[in-house]
Amino acid sequence: MRGKDLVNDLVGHLTYTEMVFFLLRGRRPTGAETRVLDACLVMLMEHGLTLNTLVARFVASAVPNQVQVAMGASLMTIGDAFMGTMEGCARILQAGIRAGGDPRAYCADVAARHRAERKAVPGFGHRFHKPDDPRTPRLFAIAEQAGAAGPHLAMMRILAEEVDRAAGKHITINATGAIGALFSDIGFTPEVMRGLAVVSRSGGLVAHIAEERESGAARLVEKLAKQHIHYRDPPPDEAP
Amino acid sequence: MRGKDLVNDLVGHLTYTEMVFFLLRGRRPTGAETRVLDACLVMLMEHGLTLNTLVARFVASAVPNQVQVAMGASLMTIGDAFMGTMEGCARILQAGIRAGGDPRAYCADVAARHRAERKAVPGFGHRFHKPDDPRTPRLFAIAEQAGAAGPHLAMMRILAEEVDRAAGKHITINATGAIGALFSDIGFTPEVMRGLAVVSRSGGLVAHIAEERESGAARLVEKLAKQHIHYRDPPPDEAP
Amino acid sequence: MRGKDLVNDLVGHLTYTEMVFFLLRGRRPTGAETRVLDACLVMLMEHGLTLNTLVARFVASAVPNQVQVAMGASLMTIGDAFMGTMEGCARILQAGIRAGGDPRAYCADVAARHRAERKAVPGFGHRFHKPDDPRTPRLFAIAEQAGAAGPHLAMMRILAEEVDRAAGKHITINATGAIGALFSDIGFTPEVMRGLAVVSRSGGLVAHIAEERESGAARLVEKLAKQHIHYRDPPPDEAP
Amino acid sequence: MRGKDLVNDLVGHLTYTEMVFFLLRGRRPTGAETRVLDACLVMLMEHGLTLNTLVARFVASAVPNQVQVAMGASLMTIGDAFMGTMEGCARILQAGIRAGGDPRAYCADVAARHRAERKAVPGFGHRFHKPDDPRTPRLFAIAEQAGAAGPHLAMMRILAEEVDRAAGKHITINATGAIGALFSDIGFTPEVMRGLAVVSRSGGLVAHIAEERESGAARLVEKLAKQHIHYRDPPPDEAP
Repeated sequence: MRGKDLVNDLVGHLTYTEMVFFLLRGRRPTGAETRVLDACLVMLMEHGLTLNTLVARFVASAVPNQVQVAMGASLMTIGDAFMGTMEGCARILQAGIRAGGDPRAYCADVAARHRAERKAVPGFGHRFHKPDDPRTPRLFAIAEQAGAAGPHLAMMRILAEEVDRAAGKHITINATGAIGALFSDIGFTPEVMRGLAVVSRSGGLVAHIAEERESGAARLVEKLAKQHIHYRDPPPDEAP
Repeated sequence: MRGKDLVNDLVGHLTYTEMVFFLLRGRRPTGAETRVLDACLVMLMEHGLTLNTLVARFVASAVPNQVQVAMGASLMTIGDAFMGTMEGCARILQAGIRAGGDPRAYCADVAARHRAERKAVPGFGHRFHKPDDPRTPRLFAIAEQAGAAGPHLAMMRILAEEVDRAAGKHITINATGAIGALFSDIGFTPEVMRGLAVVSRSGGLVAHIAEERESGAARLVEKLAKQHIHYRDPPPDEAP
Repeated sequence: MRGKDLVNDLVGHLTYTEMVFFLLRGRRPTGAETRVLDACLVMLMEHGLTLNTLVARFVASAVPNQVQVAMGASLMTIGDAFMGTMEGCARILQAGIRAGGDPRAYCADVAARHRAERKAVPGFGHRFHKPDDPRTPRLFAIAEQAGAAGPHLAMMRILAEEVDRAAGKHITINATGAIGALFSDIGFTPEVMRGLAVVSRSGGLVAHIAEERESGAARLVEKLAKQHIHYRDPPPDEAP
Repeated sequence: MRGKDLVNDLVGHLTYTEMVFFLLRGRRPTGAETRVLDACLVMLMEHGLTLNTLVARFVASAVPNQVQVAMGASLMTIGDAFMGTMEGCARILQAGIRAGGDPRAYCADVAARHRAERKAVPGFGHRFHKPDDPRTPRLFAIAEQAGAAGPHLAMMRILAEEVDRAAGKHITINATGAIGALFSDIGFTPEVMRGLAVVSRSGGLVAHIAEERESGAARLVEKLAKQHIHYRDPPPDEAP
């Protein structure tokens, strides 16, 4: 495995987080990289009764004793709607660094283009966390204290200023945007970031499914749905 | 494909239902077999806002434009909790026929053994449909009118009498029990029955997901869950 | 259910295929529509040892007695790579009909634009079936004999001529392209077509998984993979 | 979250592995517990081109840009066939400890009962690793050096002696058996162990799917399957 023997060189020598890094990057992470990766994985792990965890609970209730099926079905929801912004933000930052040139001009252009298309810049804005997502400064502080803050985080701060300027008001950097910046600084490509989010969530799901065995929340939600949602026949599907 | 050419011998000559039968059994079904298989597939197709369809809606909402992912995740819930009784009932009936001997003695023994273990006989009883599941007599009538009623259905009627006698009250044959009997009479093994249920539900899901695009019910249910379910930390997992 | 009672109005009166149409469109299909829908569903049902069916066999081997899990995992592969062309082709045809105007000019423009971008027109070309996919003329003949051929099929023929002209050689209409045209003529939107493909494949999978129980092909393929594929460490994932 | 604030009390203070423990057990692990949990998670993470990872590669190839779908489908294969022995072994050990009494008599009885039923004791034997699975002594050494070896590991050693005695030859403790013992000693119930295995594998899959993008191994395996496996029609499914 990348020149190392699993049993003797890796097991007992690397933490789980270090091993994930090793498998992806072919070398052991530094302490700073590990600290950032751990912080990001812990931040995304658990999200209460969301759409994602409800899927896990529903499937666990329908297919008992096959916890891996419930976990697998739930992890499939870590898709564009939830993690697209992390990758989108990382793509913008990594392209900006690769391009070289003046970061402020680049960021102003990104903000202006999204504004013109009436689209949010990926990694900015949050439904509930206003004016600021409290997770973002915490993650930035961890990266800085660890000495893992690099050019992508620096550009993220400039981008945030330009997003505010273009909007004429303050818009928060959300946690997935922050993680997109931090993951970029420790060297991950946008392509693997969603996979890392899946890893993170898998840890949270074990606890959710254990709790479901106690609480039977899935059945309660099913009952609520039947009581409150009036199921209407959809309009007929009709091509021109 | 079982000695036939797909393009010339099968497409245009067999309905979808006939083709499913052909792939499993190696011959074209009779008209009576087709009629029973169609009736059972239609009966199971659609069930409103249940746990199963909620999973489809949640995943469709999280992973837009990948309808097959939502369908796949939802179909995984057609497991022991929902379809185990169909197979269990079919196993009892098919073992009884295979054993030969007196069907009433066999059924009385089945009913007594389940009674002694305080277990429901698979295919009997229903949470909502009391005293009788209206789907059962309809399915039985279709099989009889088609001339597809055979020894398994006959034994199912005897089993129902013995279940009632053992319980000291009337317990309905539910729809999955009825289908287990009918599928047995048209020659399916218990092993493939769950697969046929998945086929049936897949048809219903296409419409559910189309409706979800219009209604956004998934997000409403998520909101209801957050409002009404108090998420408690589970008791710690602790081995002895 | 769309104004009908499932037990009395639908079960026993509609075939599975008619019920799928009914749930999506809110009315019973005509005989011609049913014939086309059946032909398309049968055509896509079964594809031998492909990537899709191998997934079903692998999962069935790992998670025995949970056939719905194997089916669900396999159906998730009915994605952009396999069914995107059906939807893409249908979109082109439906947009052309909606636009009105001269169909030949529209088709020539579609062919030229794809040519300029060095992209295949969705629904055209096939890796193995050269010069012609034999499934396409069969499907077209069924639609015509049934009296279900409409403007989309007519435009598909014009598009094929313009694709050939732009390419300077003959390129086949493939089966998914043909089905995109036929599904459009019986009134389905591109959005539901992938769901119909999933329905079709679900029927084929029941037989594949039954066969896997006999043959154990999954383990053979695993062995072949280990023997023939030299697993190389990937190049390190490395952001700029 | 169990009385702690995610952003301020947990992120940056706990590693991913510690957070998994915290969510399940309601307290921070000791250093010894963390060391054992990390070692077990790393040991199971990556297994080359197995049935499990082939599923991930196949789905990734069919559904590009939705890495979570490939991961979810693959994780569903971490079922009874692969992880049942871990749980089964843990159940035996935990029941033995709970029962009190003479551990040797208990273990001799377990070995004898399995022998009489011609079943392997869960956690013993391995297809390839003969006479000994090299992962087992490594895991045991890590637990002992960390000071996390407890009564379950002690009983596992006795059980191994009794398994050998009953068989009349040496049978290895395999890695899943070893992990079942170690997970028991750090206090996990059998119910959550499969979920921890899923967590472990999720980390390995991110790298597999990244490699698949480079190598296209899935298509090669599909080709091998088509070349080498003769697809036979299954025997007809036929009830009595």
